[in-house]
Amino acid sequence: MDSIKFLPARDAVLNGRDAIISELRSLVPSGSLVHEMRELVPFETDAFVSYKQLPLAVVLPEDTAQVAAVLKFCHRNSIPVVPRGAGTSLCGGAIPQRDAVVICLSKMNAIIDVDYANRAAVVQAGVTNLGISERVGSDGFFYAPDPSSQLACTIGGNIGMNSGGAHCLKYGVTTNNLLGVKMVLIDGTVVDLGGMHLDAAGYDLLGLVCGSEGQLGIVTEATVRLIAKPEGCKPVLFGFETSQQAGSCVSAIIGSGIIPVAIEFMDRQAIEICEAFAGAGYPLDVGALLIIEVEGSGPEMDGLLSRIIEIARENSVKIVRESQSATEAALIWKGRKSAFGATGRIADYICMDGTVPLSKLPYVLTKTTEIVDRFGLRVANVFHAGDGNMHPLILFNANDPDDAARAEEAGNEILKLCVDVGGCLTGEHGVGIEKRELMTHQFSAEELSQQMAIRAAFDSEWLLNPSKVFPLEGRSA
Amino acid sequence: MDSIKFLPARDAVLNGRDAIISELRSLVPSGSLVHEMRELVPFETDAFVSYKQLPLAVVLPEDTAQVAAVLKFCHRNSIPVVPRGAGTSLCGGAIPQRDAVVICLSKMNAIIDVDYANRAAVVQAGVTNLGISERVGSDGFFYAPDPSSQLACTIGGNIGMNSGGAHCLKYGVTTNNLLGVKMVLIDGTVVDLGGMHLDAAGYDLLGLVCGSEGQLGIVTEATVRLIAKPEGCKPVLFGFETSQQAGSCVSAIIGSGIIPVAIEFMDRQAIEICEAFAGAGYPLDVGALLIIEVEGSGPEMDGLLSRIIEIARENSVKIVRESQSATEAALIWKGRKSAFGATGRIADYICMDGTVPLSKLPYVLTKTTEIVDRFGLRVANVFHAGDGNMHPLILFNANDPDDAARAEEAGNEILKLCVDVGGCLTGEHGVGIEKRELMTHQFSAEELSQQMAIRAAFDSEWLLNPSKVFPLEGRSA
Repeated sequence: MDSIKFLPARDAVLNGRDAIISELRSLVPSGSLVHEMRELVPFETDAFVSYKQLPLAVVLPEDTAQVAAVLKFCHRNSIPVVPRGAGTSLCGGAIPQRDAVVICLSKMNAIIDVDYANRAAVVQAGVTNLGISERVGSDGFFYAPDPSSQLACTIGGNIGMNSGGAHCLKYGVTTNNLLGVKMVLIDGTVVDLGGMHLDAAGYDLLGLVCGSEGQLGIVTEATVRLIAKPEGCKPVLFGFETSQQAGSCVSAIIGSGIIPVAIEFMDRQAIEICEAFAGAGYPLDVGALLIIEVEGSGPEMDGLLSRIIEIARENSVKIVRESQSATEAALIWKGRKSAFGATGRIADYICMDGTVPLSKLPYVLTKTTEIVDRFGLRVANVFHAGDGNMHPLILFNANDPDDAARAEEAGNEILKLCVDVGGCLTGEHGVGIEKRELMTHQFSAEELSQQMAIRAAFDSEWLLNPSKVFPLEGRSA
Repeated sequence: MDSIKFLPARDAVLNGRDAIISELRSLVPSGSLVHEMRELVPFETDAFVSYKQLPLAVVLPEDTAQVAAVLKFCHRNSIPVVPRGAGTSLCGGAIPQRDAVVICLSKMNAIIDVDYANRAAVVQAGVTNLGISERVGSDGFFYAPDPSSQLACTIGGNIGMNSGGAHCLKYGVTTNNLLGVKMVLIDGTVVDLGGMHLDAAGYDLLGLVCGSEGQLGIVTEATVRLIAKPEGCKPVLFGFETSQQAGSCVSAIIGSGIIPVAIEFMDRQAIEICEAFAGAGYPLDVGALLIIEVEGSGPEMDGLLSRIIEIARENSVKIVRESQSATEAALIWKGRKSAFGATGRIADYICMDGTVPLSKLPYVLTKTTEIVDRFGLRVANVFHAGDGNMHPLILFNANDPDDAARAEEAGNEILKLCVDVGGCLTGEHGVGIEKRELMTHQFSAEELSQQMAIRAAFDSEWLLNPSKVFPLEGRSA
């Protein structure tokens, strides 16, 4: 635990702990309040395991009214609040702080309505991402954004972080698939934003809330877009000698106007790690691999593939291997989606989420290797190339503080590089604790203070998820 | 002119007119300042012609720095500012007020960069919507949102209103095709939001700005998404006995998971008006017509069409007529896109923009007719049915004040109906002056005050486009 990573705890809150817990007990059912030390442990961190901290208490509300009651109470008493879904955040977005009440939405996991004529489902915030697709799958529909953690992560967390996934190249990230939310403001007011209709009158608060990392309110229900499953789909492996060739091939495909469903990139290190873990059938004699998925009818996929293969050949592709069965296709995706877990078996790592203009991909790949080399570390690159959303995994030994410090420094250099070439700090993971100090590299003081002014318009005391997103120093508004 | 429609003019501004004009003269080139009465007339209204008002002065800046200088000056002296593109707003969004300086972006009409590898173009705010597609068309690309006014309307105005169009069913409205903006805040600060990369760290101010009707800042440049043109496309006419059958057919198509590029709806009145104007080849012996466009390769279009025709037959379609040539296809679209102009030849009209959940379409069509009948008026329905974005054109005689009042009242009832069935006041035209008083029907007091708090975080004095979007009474924050 590194206390410098949080805003100073509020003494009045810490000293009032017993009274707070007693009041919370009256606001949520028994079984929905957690305050014993040993029961609090599961809530002390998230998938960004670099930091941990026990919260003051955790509530697990069963409905919107309970969320509203808890927020109203916390607001009146100036108690910080940290919202939490499944705790799969990769940037520390759900890590609590000592003086905070965690509101965990995991009990609110009902699918409320499925409405195909309106292309939408209404779900509670604690429903898992995959749970939506599972519910509508037998009717031929799915929910498109597919983070690697989709088995566990919740739609509320996806909205907070504007999560993406491998198939977002064609279908867009969470904000492109979100139609409405029910949200509780810090003072307990319940608002409805968007709904089962195009656009909305007035300002687009729905768009603003998506990706705001739980700082503008707590989302309790979401209306999400459903999409019909394609007739068929097929991931195809494209092996290249070098990462640069693979990177250029990606730019060339997109530049030609073709938008496959997914273009995933793995360098040699990532290929080896994932193949050893999943036995996905990846070629091991290449320097970089693209997994390109096409979908549609047989002739549609064939037509698209022949154009993609032609471009790949112009970019010196060495191996083209089509999946021959649904089993092979599933294995290809299993290998890709287990990349983070598989990497964790061989080393500690930090995962960057920088996003760059596609034309800069080959350059940034070269520079990333240079940076990591300079710090005496190794990197595995495995990412959503079609979106320019890079995920260099910097490998290090967490038991060696010097190693860890160098990994963090290398990571920061890489993210700054992404910003400097016209990209941004995060494509889909969020800012959280991890990247908040780098925000000054991406944004001018005026731009940051504009964001903070909006934050203050929702929560003037900065009670909601307070230590996240913005640098701890230099906060305004 | 109906002065009640504007906030009270500021005496200090009106009395300081000469000094203001003299200062503006020093901030923009000669030829970029308009202040003589007769020269101001073209700026007194927009395509929502119900109201007109001469502004104090108009500036036509040539670059972002000039926009910033004018805003800084206006901010310091508490002078209201009304941004303007081509003045094609259908809700009065560009109508000036007596004490306002109009900032018209029409001179800033350069296409700055076209970058296919990043699927994007960077353009100045005064570029016309169609101008972008024309520039990239020979390379096989286009910009997707296509308002009927696309020949004239500017991308800056499209961003202000989050404009849509017939082909937005598949490709989304402006917000789904906008990657970044350069924007000048009220105090003259220039900020960059978004860019040629996925998502952005921090809050989604880009999403917030899109559709904010010029109240958060003035956009001077935009980075927009380019899309590859399909191999082919084909509009097909589907004629039905009744509007309800056509409406049910739309729900059934969408409910099956098929998303054509466009599903446009015309009732008998609209068919007659458009056919008389454009000779589009529409059948005249039907009660309602759907124009459904499919795109892709020949086999793709055939496959999709056969599924759509099957659904149409289940919904008692009477006539199915495929366009047989590019000329026929162009005529079909010409008829549809000239609907507003053609209607204007036979009567005065007000055009509603209410949007409803698709499943409510047949019901709302029936009720719309009932409402208009009750007021002794006629209605022509011509709209983006696939999006549930209705455009009842209520026909009336503007020279008869009683007729006009009844038309407005009928329109308000229809919009309230849209909200009551789970829809919203406006799908693509914006709130402007026209619908601001109805905002209280769509939003709770808390929801409205949250929007106004955000507005105040950008512009605490409410100088930017001040009389629009929110009810004149009951403003807060």
